[in-house]
Amino acid sequence: MKLAMIGLGRMGGNMVKRLAAGGHEVVAYDVDAAPGKALAAEFETVSAAADLADVIAQQPAPRVLWVMVPHQFVDSSIENLLAAGVQAGDLIIDGGNSNYKDGQRRAAELEKKGILFADCGTSGGVWGLKNGYSLMIGGTDAAIALIAPALTTLASNDGKGWGHVGPVGAGHFVKMVHNGIEYGMMQAFAEGFELMKAKEEFDLDMHQISRVWQHGSVVSSWLLDLTGDALEQDGDLSSLSDWMDDSGEGRWTVNESIDLGIPTPVLTLALQMRFRSREKDAFAGKIVNAMRAGFGGHAIKAVKKE
Amino acid sequence: MKLAMIGLGRMGGNMVKRLAAGGHEVVAYDVDAAPGKALAAEFETVSAAADLADVIAQQPAPRVLWVMVPHQFVDSSIENLLAAGVQAGDLIIDGGNSNYKDGQRRAAELEKKGILFADCGTSGGVWGLKNGYSLMIGGTDAAIALIAPALTTLASNDGKGWGHVGPVGAGHFVKMVHNGIEYGMMQAFAEGFELMKAKEEFDLDMHQISRVWQHGSVVSSWLLDLTGDALEQDGDLSSLSDWMDDSGEGRWTVNESIDLGIPTPVLTLALQMRFRSREKDAFAGKIVNAMRAGFGGHAIKAVKKE
Repeated sequence: MKLAMIGLGRMGGNMVKRLAAGGHEVVAYDVDAAPGKALAAEFETVSAAADLADVIAQQPAPRVLWVMVPHQFVDSSIENLLAAGVQAGDLIIDGGNSNYKDGQRRAAELEKKGILFADCGTSGGVWGLKNGYSLMIGGTDAAIALIAPALTTLASNDGKGWGHVGPVGAGHFVKMVHNGIEYGMMQAFAEGFELMKAKEEFDLDMHQISRVWQHGSVVSSWLLDLTGDALEQDGDLSSLSDWMDDSGEGRWTVNESIDLGIPTPVLTLALQMRFRSREKDAFAGKIVNAMRAGFGGHAIKAVKKE
Repeated sequence: MKLAMIGLGRMGGNMVKRLAAGGHEVVAYDVDAAPGKALAAEFETVSAAADLADVIAQQPAPRVLWVMVPHQFVDSSIENLLAAGVQAGDLIIDGGNSNYKDGQRRAAELEKKGILFADCGTSGGVWGLKNGYSLMIGGTDAAIALIAPALTTLASNDGKGWGHVGPVGAGHFVKMVHNGIEYGMMQAFAEGFELMKAKEEFDLDMHQISRVWQHGSVVSSWLLDLTGDALEQDGDLSSLSDWMDDSGEGRWTVNESIDLGIPTPVLTLALQMRFRSREKDAFAGKIVNAMRAGFGGHAIKAVKKE
């Protein structure tokens, strides 16, 4: 099939490569002209677009326009596409990590103009190029039918790695929960490895243990594979900081648990530990020390840093 | 090699089968005579022992005696082996889920008699028979050398699934942390799936999502595979209770985090949620409702069950 990829960063660029390798024609566009030209030079079926009007001009209707940009740029990308001449019957897919409520709003606005919209959660990171992605997409049957051949190419395991999970919003909702679970799994491994490292009497080899667990254990997982690879390079991970960023989906998952009144203590604590990792001189600690000092007995030592 | 398996339950029985299929000679013993006889009838290289004296008699020194019984029966099994004539130079392996401190105590006691001891954590459950186990063993080099050929057969992926992780105690310590991590991962998936099920507007298909995630996603894991299999049989899991048991290792992991002063909020909350699952009429809830009633405004509704 023919489609356009708008946004040629780490994810979008790799997806163009996988689509082109799978025989699809891709119109590639990015605000930076360089990656589109490089992709067009590498693949016969990829053409670079000079601007969004060119993206529109290079495709027959109904156009399939995959937007793969950071979530804060999705609205402006859609506005720019509208200005460039997107027509009724065309399909816009948001393949990034948007909040599902934004997808529902965008779909409603575009529907007034007869433009189709689908929201696609995409997992697999930089490994997706080789192994294929896991894709969860929301939208109408008509919208999904337009993009299905590309999804089958993008997905891992001969197309098994994608699913039409529900109406618009469902794709990013499922991806959001996926990331929430990911936070919990990552924190579970993190705590376990820290506990083993702290047990000095056994002088455990973190890399060896990660490899033993890879084969036949209940915790075997892709995250463990990645952890083992990192430990192979640097057994103490001394080259890494312990500052843990978050990119929004963990927060949205916890917000959703509050909206729905569903308990998610593990997903919540995993997020909170990321916040804690960024604190250097936590006021909460001072408050506790102030009270300990107030009890008496703990006074001097408790309020001083060691 | 030749070794004895003492305890022929779900785990011990399957391990005998895998060892016999791998060409080892196994003396099989259980307090119930039936499984030993069945294994001896199925495999030429398996012989059933009538009692522990027979276990000892059927092996030349140094004997290798793998004890695979529930942790509360390990001490009595060792006592019975001593009474049956275990000698200096023989090796006793505890392959069950003992607390690592018990292994250290047992090793110290047996060392006085010149008897070797190793503690082996075994992961893989009923799938281990076919796929091989993940085994983490602690003990001296001399002890591990005696059992290594059997470990290579038992382990998954052509023997890659086992490791000599440290001195006695280290095997069960690492297995304990493995199970603690397992609790955290299971609870993370549990919370995520519950959140998706509660999002009624999307009418999500839990089985479909579990399968999409299996292929190329960051949360792909053996636990997800098992969850997907269960959801395939029964999409609502309506045949299952929500009562979550625990078997001790999660508690030991949290105890260890307290002993070492290492934060493990996710592993701890995963355990606490198992406790919560068993409460029907929680006193903590009544206490909160009593206070809400005390504030006024929430009075009548708050203290009555709906």
